[in-house]
Amino acid sequence: MRRTRILILGGGFGGVYTAMALERTLRRDAEVEISLVSRDNYLVFQPMLPEVISGSIGILDTIAPIRRLCPNTDLYTRTVESIDLNNRIVSTSSGFRPRPYQLEYDHLVIALGNITSFSGQPGLEEHALTFKYLGDALVLRNHIIHALEEADIEKDPQLRRALLTFVVAGSGFSGVEAVAELNDFVRTVARSFRNIPIADIRVVLAAGARVLPELPKDLGDFAQRLLARRGVEIRLNTRLAGATADYALLQDGERIPAKTLISTVPSAPNPLVEALPCRKERGKIVVNEYLEVPDYPGVWAIGDCASVPDRATGQPCPPTAQHATRQAACCAQNIVATLRGESKRPFTFKTLGKLGALGHHSAVAEILGVKLSGFLAWFVWRTIYLMKLPGLDRKVRVATDWLLDLFLKPDIVQVKAGLGASVGREHFEADETIFDQGERGDRLYIIVDGEVEVVKKEPGGGEVVLACLGPGECFGEMALVSDLPRRAAARTRTSVNVLTVDRAAFSALFTSLPPLRGLFEQLIEQRLKSGNAK
Amino acid sequence: MRRTRILILGGGFGGVYTAMALERTLRRDAEVEISLVSRDNYLVFQPMLPEVISGSIGILDTIAPIRRLCPNTDLYTRTVESIDLNNRIVSTSSGFRPRPYQLEYDHLVIALGNITSFSGQPGLEEHALTFKYLGDALVLRNHIIHALEEADIEKDPQLRRALLTFVVAGSGFSGVEAVAELNDFVRTVARSFRNIPIADIRVVLAAGARVLPELPKDLGDFAQRLLARRGVEIRLNTRLAGATADYALLQDGERIPAKTLISTVPSAPNPLVEALPCRKERGKIVVNEYLEVPDYPGVWAIGDCASVPDRATGQPCPPTAQHATRQAACCAQNIVATLRGESKRPFTFKTLGKLGALGHHSAVAEILGVKLSGFLAWFVWRTIYLMKLPGLDRKVRVATDWLLDLFLKPDIVQVKAGLGASVGREHFEADETIFDQGERGDRLYIIVDGEVEVVKKEPGGGEVVLACLGPGECFGEMALVSDLPRRAAARTRTSVNVLTVDRAAFSALFTSLPPLRGLFEQLIEQRLKSGNAK
Repeated sequence: MRRTRILILGGGFGGVYTAMALERTLRRDAEVEISLVSRDNYLVFQPMLPEVISGSIGILDTIAPIRRLCPNTDLYTRTVESIDLNNRIVSTSSGFRPRPYQLEYDHLVIALGNITSFSGQPGLEEHALTFKYLGDALVLRNHIIHALEEADIEKDPQLRRALLTFVVAGSGFSGVEAVAELNDFVRTVARSFRNIPIADIRVVLAAGARVLPELPKDLGDFAQRLLARRGVEIRLNTRLAGATADYALLQDGERIPAKTLISTVPSAPNPLVEALPCRKERGKIVVNEYLEVPDYPGVWAIGDCASVPDRATGQPCPPTAQHATRQAACCAQNIVATLRGESKRPFTFKTLGKLGALGHHSAVAEILGVKLSGFLAWFVWRTIYLMKLPGLDRKVRVATDWLLDLFLKPDIVQVKAGLGASVGREHFEADETIFDQGERGDRLYIIVDGEVEVVKKEPGGGEVVLACLGPGECFGEMALVSDLPRRAAARTRTSVNVLTVDRAAFSALFTSLPPLRGLFEQLIEQRLKSGNAK
Repeated sequence: MRRTRILILGGGFGGVYTAMALERTLRRDAEVEISLVSRDNYLVFQPMLPEVISGSIGILDTIAPIRRLCPNTDLYTRTVESIDLNNRIVSTSSGFRPRPYQLEYDHLVIALGNITSFSGQPGLEEHALTFKYLGDALVLRNHIIHALEEADIEKDPQLRRALLTFVVAGSGFSGVEAVAELNDFVRTVARSFRNIPIADIRVVLAAGARVLPELPKDLGDFAQRLLARRGVEIRLNTRLAGATADYALLQDGERIPAKTLISTVPSAPNPLVEALPCRKERGKIVVNEYLEVPDYPGVWAIGDCASVPDRATGQPCPPTAQHATRQAACCAQNIVATLRGESKRPFTFKTLGKLGALGHHSAVAEILGVKLSGFLAWFVWRTIYLMKLPGLDRKVRVATDWLLDLFLKPDIVQVKAGLGASVGREHFEADETIFDQGERGDRLYIIVDGEVEVVKKEPGGGEVVLACLGPGECFGEMALVSDLPRRAAARTRTSVNVLTVDRAAFSALFTSLPPLRGLFEQLIEQRLKSGNAK
């Protein structure tokens, strides 16, 4: 007799809470086997993520190990690669060694959420930081401290101001919570840097029509006034349109010179969900009131990747953790009911409330229709989320963090884990300098699209255009080969996307592959002959 | 009137304590300017690093921000690239944008420490983890949890045992402290994994002639017995000779199948120090009793990169934090004395004691000649190091960590920061399988040295050697281009070093560079024609 296999995809609130609810309901039913596939072995408690930026919550304390939350579930810490609804097989990525892993199921719960995507906005993919996963919060924190470190020793006042400018796009909950924490953090720790003029710090929020549109207008206005008082520059009706390494480009054409740009806006359907043959609405899987995917018996979908009908409003449910966890409980119940031949129950839930933290002992909240703002809302925020945080040990850790945070200074250590990608991408707008003559050559550029001109400055002050390069051509290799400063400048004629290859990858790759080495030796010889060396 | 510029290189105990001592002595002397160049913006408190593995100390709590320790010093968070003693110029790496930074000095303090180096031991560079910096501890922690995650879902018992085998090389303080923490951690958290047979866990210490040779023999024996009782397999007189992704190679030829290998042994002179024209002994800068570098007035060297005469023994001082901090104080005093025209004092210091933590409420110590072991030594260890930890807020944080650790379970979340290098290196011994027919193709291989044969298995059971490849040739590109499983296996004939290029880097790089694309298209066509496709 084969055991019934329930397979859950996704390690967010939807997936993990389904496993927890199944474990509770089934107890240790030996005839059912629960498996969960998650990219990470932990659940991220999103509401507390912004506090990781400032370090007021310890890095690991906003996340909870999935194994401890659902100890009787088999956890596969893998990435889902494909879902075959017809043959009932899910394939996952490989681990230490390349080995496909295939999982079969009787019941499948799809809780894959959505992804961030910048498609169509030039330069955002390359230069904007996202804010969704724990890794994002860490990268952001390190980036901010790196910018402060650089600003502290930068002599050029213009560049220093760009290093001290932080642009956040998006005025919903995540954007506002991020900008509030970031603003508090930067302004507090800047005092530990000797040469940073506090007046040069600029924090800009590129907002929609209003701040916190999810809440009633007076609460949004409260948040807006509070942030403005704390030094955040709020630009209403101003969308982010693009970015380069040097500035953020706004919809009205304004360029804000900044080295730090955070975008919390874009979310797109998960490509795995897009590839499914079932019916979708706005990229989300359509389910019935029991959370079943029609035409595919045994397949369920919940959370941000599902379009769940809300019985009260007739609209689909909003993509919140409140809904995901309730859908998880309902889905688990309905799966068990199906297994036991009992009747299923439809999903119903009414939003209990909405809370937004504004940093520094302030928040806004609307709970069961009651509006709160300021210190009281902040206290409610902390109490509710501490209660909601899964796992007792996490509760103890976060409570301790908050206690210590009351009397210790925020941390300014910058943990560089990993040395960055050796092959990367960059975006430039037209008429920008990619590198200047005399600079240190630290990477090779390959043009993906656009036009670049190579310019040599003459001692007399004039300029000579040495070459104009297009897609597939590369430049900057000379300084990598010779270790001398750049012998010419590279400037964009149009907007340009490039691939970059750093020094280590360049020398490893290009010296070990003789045909490639030949290619570059030829190229360099040609350019030297025509005096075009750069 | 120009200010006197004191430049300190290195953010370890030597460098940071010199800056701290200078600030104390000089107060806010407006005529002196202190600068410090450090790769990281924090000081690592090495003794507590092993506890980062188990998470009993928070990730950021063993490190102290340098800016807060010496607030009147200009900190350059950069890597030193060259030291020009004749022209008195130090060059550092670039920051956000490529820009050389050059610093001039009147007094230079070289405190660059040493580096880890595996030169000459095949495969260690590629497959052994080091344990020196904070980043190493994080990588190691994540690697261990990753291995446990994989072991939990691995069906092949042989591979599962390899995933559960952890080899540590080096029986000095750092090796023993690392193996003790690792052993405690793995055995404790394995209980949170459903399918890991505790009996399969193997922790091996490849030791020298005895455990903890720095301490008297009876203390070393105590440590050895204790570790053995806790399940550590101690191999005396067994050096690590090499490694591949699949096993550790011991000096006697034994291969221990293991996916985790930590080497704490090797340290080599810093290449920057090697490049200096001054006199050296065993790679260390020879200084006089005042810590001055002879023939270069105004240049000083301290810590692990200096050969400092010990007046008591006549030998050079050992490379310990105790010595580095005392040398820093002496060096700072002598610099100030030189500036003020006073007389310098020679360096003298006698080791106060040595302590080694053995995890789980146990340690060994020799303090002012008194030998301690077990719980008392552990208590002394914690008390002394908590006192020594620089900065009050760090003391509070670590004390809190230790308190929580008494009643909370160790953490098992695996934080993947950064997606790993897109261009990497691997080492294989002779007669090993690099990849097997039917596996998923996830990377391209380029042979740096050695010979590889490509073998196709016939349906009947036989094998056909399709090709034998040598340095500069590549293989494995077919599976990347076609997304099909590997059509043949690759096996080493000799020991082989390869470069690997992952799927993302491959497609970015090789599709944007037309000449390169041409190269690969040709190659694939050739191989398809001759039926050699892999």
